Amino acid sequence: MRDLVEIGMGRTARRAYELDDIEIIPSRRTRSSKDVSTTWQIDAYRFDIPLITHPTDAIVSPGTAVAVGELGGLGVLNAEGLWARHGDVDEALFRLVQATEDSDDPAAAVKVLQELHAAPLRMDLIAEAVKQIRESGVTVAVRVSPQRAAELTPDLLAAGVEILVVQGTIISAEHVSRDGEPLNLKSFIADLDIPVIAGGVGDYRTAMHLMRTGAAGVIVGYGYTPGVTTTDSVLGIGVPMATAIADAAAARRDYLDETGGRYVHVIADGGVTTSGDVAKSIACGADAVMLGEPLAAATEAPGQGLYWTASSAHPSVPRSLVAEAVDQELDLRKLLFGPSADPRGVTNLFGALKRAMAKTGYSDLKEFQKVGLTIRG
Amino acid sequence: MRDLVEIGMGRTARRAYELDDIEIIPSRRTRSSKDVSTTWQIDAYRFDIPLITHPTDAIVSPGTAVAVGELGGLGVLNAEGLWARHGDVDEALFRLVQATEDSDDPAAAVKVLQELHAAPLRMDLIAEAVKQIRESGVTVAVRVSPQRAAELTPDLLAAGVEILVVQGTIISAEHVSRDGEPLNLKSFIADLDIPVIAGGVGDYRTAMHLMRTGAAGVIVGYGYTPGVTTTDSVLGIGVPMATAIADAAAARRDYLDETGGRYVHVIADGGVTTSGDVAKSIACGADAVMLGEPLAAATEAPGQGLYWTASSAHPSVPRSLVAEAVDQELDLRKLLFGPSADPRGVTNLFGALKRAMAKTGYSDLKEFQKVGLTIRG
Amino acid sequence: MRDLVEIGMGRTARRAYELDDIEIIPSRRTRSSKDVSTTWQIDAYRFDIPLITHPTDAIVSPGTAVAVGELGGLGVLNAEGLWARHGDVDEALFRLVQATEDSDDPAAAVKVLQELHAAPLRMDLIAEAVKQIRESGVTVAVRVSPQRAAELTPDLLAAGVEILVVQGTIISAEHVSRDGEPLNLKSFIADLDIPVIAGGVGDYRTAMHLMRTGAAGVIVGYGYTPGVTTTDSVLGIGVPMATAIADAAAARRDYLDETGGRYVHVIADGGVTTSGDVAKSIACGADAVMLGEPLAAATEAPGQGLYWTASSAHPSVPRSLVAEAVDQELDLRKLLFGPSADPRGVTNLFGALKRAMAKTGYSDLKEFQKVGLTIRG
Amino acid sequence: MRDLVEIGMGRTARRAYELDDIEIIPSRRTRSSKDVSTTWQIDAYRFDIPLITHPTDAIVSPGTAVAVGELGGLGVLNAEGLWARHGDVDEALFRLVQATEDSDDPAAAVKVLQELHAAPLRMDLIAEAVKQIRESGVTVAVRVSPQRAAELTPDLLAAGVEILVVQGTIISAEHVSRDGEPLNLKSFIADLDIPVIAGGVGDYRTAMHLMRTGAAGVIVGYGYTPGVTTTDSVLGIGVPMATAIADAAAARRDYLDETGGRYVHVIADGGVTTSGDVAKSIACGADAVMLGEPLAAATEAPGQGLYWTASSAHPSVPRSLVAEAVDQELDLRKLLFGPSADPRGVTNLFGALKRAMAKTGYSDLKEFQKVGLTIRG
Repeated sequence: MRDLVEIGMGRTARRAYELDDIEIIPSRRTRSSKDVSTTWQIDAYRFDIPLITHPTDAIVSPGTAVAVGELGGLGVLNAEGLWARHGDVDEALFRLVQATEDSDDPAAAVKVLQELHAAPLRMDLIAEAVKQIRESGVTVAVRVSPQRAAELTPDLLAAGVEILVVQGTIISAEHVSRDGEPLNLKSFIADLDIPVIAGGVGDYRTAMHLMRTGAAGVIVGYGYTPGVTTTDSVLGIGVPMATAIADAAAARRDYLDETGGRYVHVIADGGVTTSGDVAKSIACGADAVMLGEPLAAATEAPGQGLYWTASSAHPSVPRSLVAEAVDQELDLRKLLFGPSADPRGVTNLFGALKRAMAKTGYSDLKEFQKVGLTIRG
Repeated sequence: MRDLVEIGMGRTARRAYELDDIEIIPSRRTRSSKDVSTTWQIDAYRFDIPLITHPTDAIVSPGTAVAVGELGGLGVLNAEGLWARHGDVDEALFRLVQATEDSDDPAAAVKVLQELHAAPLRMDLIAEAVKQIRESGVTVAVRVSPQRAAELTPDLLAAGVEILVVQGTIISAEHVSRDGEPLNLKSFIADLDIPVIAGGVGDYRTAMHLMRTGAAGVIVGYGYTPGVTTTDSVLGIGVPMATAIADAAAARRDYLDETGGRYVHVIADGGVTTSGDVAKSIACGADAVMLGEPLAAATEAPGQGLYWTASSAHPSVPRSLVAEAVDQELDLRKLLFGPSADPRGVTNLFGALKRAMAKTGYSDLKEFQKVGLTIRG
Repeated sequence: MRDLVEIGMGRTARRAYELDDIEIIPSRRTRSSKDVSTTWQIDAYRFDIPLITHPTDAIVSPGTAVAVGELGGLGVLNAEGLWARHGDVDEALFRLVQATEDSDDPAAAVKVLQELHAAPLRMDLIAEAVKQIRESGVTVAVRVSPQRAAELTPDLLAAGVEILVVQGTIISAEHVSRDGEPLNLKSFIADLDIPVIAGGVGDYRTAMHLMRTGAAGVIVGYGYTPGVTTTDSVLGIGVPMATAIADAAAARRDYLDETGGRYVHVIADGGVTTSGDVAKSIACGADAVMLGEPLAAATEAPGQGLYWTASSAHPSVPRSLVAEAVDQELDLRKLLFGPSADPRGVTNLFGALKRAMAKTGYSDLKEFQKVGLTIRG
Repeated sequence: MRDLVEIGMGRTARRAYELDDIEIIPSRRTRSSKDVSTTWQIDAYRFDIPLITHPTDAIVSPGTAVAVGELGGLGVLNAEGLWARHGDVDEALFRLVQATEDSDDPAAAVKVLQELHAAPLRMDLIAEAVKQIRESGVTVAVRVSPQRAAELTPDLLAAGVEILVVQGTIISAEHVSRDGEPLNLKSFIADLDIPVIAGGVGDYRTAMHLMRTGAAGVIVGYGYTPGVTTTDSVLGIGVPMATAIADAAAARRDYLDETGGRYVHVIADGGVTTSGDVAKSIACGADAVMLGEPLAAATEAPGQGLYWTASSAHPSVPRSLVAEAVDQELDLRKLLFGPSADPRGVTNLFGALKRAMAKTGYSDLKEFQKVGLTIRG
């Protein structure tokens, strides 16, 4: 069970694992899919499936946020994305699609995203978008960056936001800055009346610190998407998800003990490209999963089949490609609940999760976090 | 010899190995192929080679079941497959072939399989197929699912089935269900006069439980076929075969001890694409091997070179592609016994097994289970 | 933390790691990029960024040496390369470009390099090149081989060289020779008034020996470039960079202790193809990084997009391909400092380094050598 | 240093390594190539380079046996190959070349080889071939199979053979057979006046047994050639070369001790495709290396650029492809001694070996067996 490796004299690294490294192994009784529940709850909000959308404009418009909510998940609109900056988002996205079609250079599409994100935030647009979600009756969640959380939140609350997601690619509870006014997450959360989900983090210690700020949920990872995100190439930084989720789950357990009962949800954001990955994320200890790329194939996804993560639009150090467009042939309902005729694990994502739980004899998500795992040789 | 890995704080996974991870290493005397025997026996039935067919319609028609039997193996017809649902199976298979030729979308062929399997089971067709096998004089074996075993078995027995294979992708001795009437395998087997082979399982505990139900043989695995089955992507579930076979062999040993002498056969179903894999499966502890894809190349295989496993037809969560058609240039006899001019390990499958045993100095299958193994660095 | 493996009975090998095997993991507070410094200093020379050029003519002309110096790094001209042998280097490079365009045979381009390097060294050309760099006001550094160091150095000093880089693909402090006069590095350095950087080395012991010769900096590695250098295929020799850097850093620490305060800089030369690799090199313990291939894409690089290392020109045992030409679309400034619209980690190399340090909460290079690392399972 | 892995409950496998898994690491002084010797000696025969040819007709005709001998190595003619069966070998090879050109099916070429090897052995042809080698004055060595060694040897001795190579893909000192008359290697060798090299073996025990038969050299491996040999696919059998060589070297050491001074040479036959692999083989403990595929590119190689190993011609279980033809552009001298303009490690094979020894500070082969090794993470 040794997990430290001496890479050179006196320098150690910790062994860490991606979801691809592990597999679930059935080792008990089996069960009917019908007897399996995938519900979970954060604060007062209850969801049928452990699905939160990754806050990229590629998959989340106000309309898809509503659709996801109606199907039992939580759609999160990016309050600093295209819907917050452009009155005519269709036209903005058209420019992006054009760029991907006109050039093979990955920088071409990123450049368009950088330009689109250079447009100023317009509070009226955000408020309008939030209102549209709110009127549908589903839970209203938006994402803000740590940098602008303090500035934007009052208006967002006024517009009717119910869950606030404070999310950067890597954040910490204690941000150091010589000038400027870094966000004090603890007092920020204490002053709010709504639950905050914060992240992403990559290790036990930062997860624990974020839990202690009062967050209702902690996001693990930064939306790692094989072939799309390039954080490793650009920064040398990586957050192997199986290990990171398990570490955050350990923090959740210890924090629960430390507080005598406060349960902070662990939300996995990265490495999920198939229904099998959803199951593995829960198996490693996640309470819910942020889905990104798999939803780009939905007819409702605004990106017209393109996928990118928020870090693609960074003005000087972008860390995500714009992935080639996939066909959008299935609606969200079919994608989430099937039935599927595609054996590749890309549709019926939550029907497959139920089946994985049934095959291994578990009836709810919390129990399924204990399922047996193997690691390839 | 540590086999547990801490993937994250407080969360462990077990190291597990596929057949591809291991190699047999000669380390004793050698021997003549002529002095090697590959016979084995289950209950009263004796076979020249440790070959059972994977129950997919891609390779097993009543005719190929007879052919395999006459060549010394055991053909298993799927009593819930095409021969049990369609009077004109040729026409049904023609639809499937068409679908694979007309579309690159893997869902197209699966959809046809789903439709073909939606046709009702017809007891008259099954009985007729069983009769055809029986009349040839070879051992008659059919596969039923755990769900329909109780319903179908009386008629199958009446039709002359001699070995019953109760097989789902993952099954357990104790299936839990709030409604419906799950199969009690123990009393089911106790009431039968014929030997039952049951599975698939992936670990020691479930293998042991199945042995205790009275099964004559336990199937390990679910027909894992690289590039074809997608259980890992869809469910996150995997059964690394080298480890799973060795674990089931350990259960066999312990059960033998516990019962003072009842030997339950371990049948490996998965990971076998070459004659080398057959040898490795036995070397890990299997008594016999379920062959699937390698037999699709036989001129007698009904699938016209296509290959899929039973899980491909699942109505909502299919977990197997229909593999592109291979050329059918050799008859079964040549495929099993050579001589071969193809150095890729796809023909003369059991001649090669004998040669592997001879090169390592073993004269029967049981001894060969102890041959030396290496794992690549 | 065991790092010795028994590859066979009584024969051990040490586990060693490349930069690709490791990832940086954030595990503390974060920080603003603005509050991060990447300066370092060797002897009296101070640099804004930890960049030294790999001494290949593919990327370093007298002009680019100046450009790199003006941008805060250290350009090193090869005093035994094309600028030291050919009056018309453009024409020489034209021959090389022709050879790569006319033939697919990798030997064709190497043959041209061998021929170009067979021309005699001309002290007048070297002196002229050095003068050109000196007049710009940047720090003047040139590379000589251990074989010719003694012969060339007096003239180089006279021409105004300020830092001498004594570099072979693999060198040692103690070179044994039956005939000839091997370089005694210790007395050679003692006799010089300018700082010497020497290498490359691959292990703790040789690094320590070089430190004891009085070198101001020790180079680790031999310019390993995936897909370009072929030292492993030709000689069976390899220097996995993560391990080699960490070992040299351990030697630096021990030598610091042994001398009561002499700090010898560790310069990593190999395995760096992205900004992420720059960050990882520092994280493993390097004080600065030799950059090669990533600079071939600069408009200023003399190689017209081609890349090769010095070992490509070896007269009988060449160990580097001439890589296919890349587009030269960005100037050095953009390549080093961005802003970037390319998410692949190939531009804004040192902006990205700053960001990696900020994301993990470090404010200078020395501290960043302690950042947390993971190794993939 | 644990090298046993539990692949499943109660079933272990030993970790084993290929040459590709290891790298040589310089960690001492360096030395001039000029001061390095690669000579070795078996019985009374002394060779400039540790090269023995793999006994395949693809590379060894009587003429190339002479050429190799004159260049300082040992050519071994296959006494049961084409030169022993066909008066007109050119025509036979022409048929093979045709087959590779006419068909993409790997079985087509193998079929031709099987047919060519079905022709009867003609003692007159063998004797004539041996005479041709003998007349040149180089050391005369031929290969016989264990099955036919007793039958062929008297005539071979009469024809002037000086070293006998008894080689099957896998052999043992103790071959068991119910009928027929297996070779008793010990008495066979005792009755001979010339040195015998025997193999191939894959482990310590069999190597030790072969040493005890009185063999002057023991061959490790079976000519494993990536992309050509298919022993793993066909038989499930593999002999990871780094481990196998080290194990045989351990047997050599123990046998030397046991006999108070009899040194049996370890000859590595497999895994060598570059000069780097030659160096690694020696570094693992080999005294000499059997070269196959790298020599197919020599203008003198009879196979016209094709390569196959002896197991390709097996009448029922062939285990080697006929590799696609490579260009034959260099003569043997250039291939072995350079100078090279090809940086891929395929020419100047023994010049590169010398350089590897020099870079790591060793002056003879025996010492070089102790050079430092690393294993990739």
